[in-house]
Amino acid sequence: MTQPDTLRGIGESATLARIFPRLPVSSHALLGPGDDSAVMAAPDGRFVVTTDMMIHGPDFRLAWSSSHDLGWKAAASNLADVAAMGATPTALVVAIAAPADSPVSLLEGISDGLRDACLALAPGCGVVGGDLSVSDTLTIAVTAFGDLDGRAPVLRSGARVGDVVAVAGVLGRAAAGLKLLFEHAVVDGRPDATAAAALRASHPTLVAAQLAPRPPIGLGVLASRAGATAMLDLSDGLALDARRLAFASGAAVELSSAAVGSREALDGGEDHSLLATFPPDAELPEGFRIIGVVVDGSGVLVDGQPYSERGGWDPYEQWSGARG
Amino acid sequence: MTQPDTLRGIGESATLARIFPRLPVSSHALLGPGDDSAVMAAPDGRFVVTTDMMIHGPDFRLAWSSSHDLGWKAAASNLADVAAMGATPTALVVAIAAPADSPVSLLEGISDGLRDACLALAPGCGVVGGDLSVSDTLTIAVTAFGDLDGRAPVLRSGARVGDVVAVAGVLGRAAAGLKLLFEHAVVDGRPDATAAAALRASHPTLVAAQLAPRPPIGLGVLASRAGATAMLDLSDGLALDARRLAFASGAAVELSSAAVGSREALDGGEDHSLLATFPPDAELPEGFRIIGVVVDGSGVLVDGQPYSERGGWDPYEQWSGARG
Repeated sequence: MTQPDTLRGIGESATLARIFPRLPVSSHALLGPGDDSAVMAAPDGRFVVTTDMMIHGPDFRLAWSSSHDLGWKAAASNLADVAAMGATPTALVVAIAAPADSPVSLLEGISDGLRDACLALAPGCGVVGGDLSVSDTLTIAVTAFGDLDGRAPVLRSGARVGDVVAVAGVLGRAAAGLKLLFEHAVVDGRPDATAAAALRASHPTLVAAQLAPRPPIGLGVLASRAGATAMLDLSDGLALDARRLAFASGAAVELSSAAVGSREALDGGEDHSLLATFPPDAELPEGFRIIGVVVDGSGVLVDGQPYSERGGWDPYEQWSGARG
Repeated sequence: MTQPDTLRGIGESATLARIFPRLPVSSHALLGPGDDSAVMAAPDGRFVVTTDMMIHGPDFRLAWSSSHDLGWKAAASNLADVAAMGATPTALVVAIAAPADSPVSLLEGISDGLRDACLALAPGCGVVGGDLSVSDTLTIAVTAFGDLDGRAPVLRSGARVGDVVAVAGVLGRAAAGLKLLFEHAVVDGRPDATAAAALRASHPTLVAAQLAPRPPIGLGVLASRAGATAMLDLSDGLALDARRLAFASGAAVELSSAAVGSREALDGGEDHSLLATFPPDAELPEGFRIIGVVVDGSGVLVDGQPYSERGGWDPYEQWSGARG
């Protein structure tokens, strides 16, 4: 059996030559990869920018995620932060650091995942630059850009008392998928690929929500056009992110447990769904559903009662290497 | 003795509260950190973007670099890629992943280094967003932006036969500093802090050129205004980067060894000086010095002879964990 090509074996230039053709092209790029910097069009006169890093261990495990999943999730989570401003994603830059003995197919798979996520979630968005490096810890850092097309950015601070609170996308599925993986795909204390594959077959929706989420990226712009007063990406769970929106807006968010659906939907993170507030008379874009209302006060209420579960996820306090 | 605060000990929010006030503010930001994305002004209707990641081991060693050095170098190396397009740096986004038991002062020092490098090398440039994560391998990923102010970007492909070849900034010092560190600041096979401190005292210029380089960022715009036909950042050494410029431009670069100065100046990487070509009648900005000419042919010539040393640095082929 021949050994697969490794990064060390073929070197940086040959690796780049293998992954470049797989990357999505940005229709907003004036100059793509290959020079010291890329040049992007910003016809609006502004651009939005966000960055997010994924680390092997705390953020993903190679026993559970395919390389395609990794590229997909790295793109999707950043695209959601652009969408949450009411902007259209235009481009990504991607820095990847991998162990030198990794197979080249790892980077090819990540590239394919980046491409397929852009094509599916944000057509026209592509990779305009990047960096390859070597690290003992597989690391993917994505920076994403978006265009506001003349609209004001939708901040988390704009909610007003009386606004409806609405969500687009799923709630709690990514956390449910992660819970399944920790319960059923850890063998002798280590993430197990065979068990994860079995789980992916038995619970495809929940596992995919965790490993390769599909946030409703296009609904960010539609929410902005419909007059959304505040919006954010649900990366740390509805309860915690709603509290952030409430705090930034100087008001309280009151949620209906019946509309939210479950405790997992309240607390589970990583769905990358969009939480937005709209004036009471706004016509909500298809895909948003009302789950509450903005009221006087502070924090989050559920069915009228203050909801003070912490929720969310703190990488420094909560991650232990042994779980990775 | 009290233990220093660690990232795990105080958590993500308190860490952010400690580092935010230390970060430089961008005078081009319309919305800074704190929402899903930042919003940047791009009055030119375009922006340039580049990304570069620094990894503990292959790219730096904590025994040699102070946390301030790390922030400084992460900023400086990215600013140089913006300058090499002829653009003015406007902002950075910075993702940092650190071991959970790191002292908070590590991130404070990195922040101070980012700030001081921006203030010294590119006033008006600041940090507009970021991400904190946890990793066994300290990792700093910076994405930098720049504004072209109506000028065409200076590509590496624009050199024409007859152009002069000029360089701004030092050559070979960063590599000489690294050589000193490997020769004199490795004890029992490991990078040694005491030995590195002694070396920093005895050879401050060379060691600082490696650990905290000062590329001539402002000269990028001046070169563009003076009519530079091609430009790039010397990250991999003059010989290799000149070959890249020559290849992209479909010509050869002929260098004068007397003007270049030394073999180390030809081959040593990481100076982040600027290599540019200008029409023969151009008035070079102060700070550029002529080291050669663009001629018919391909590759790099030194004193008329083809120069085929490979030079440069391939992270996948050349890094071994034992050196880190």
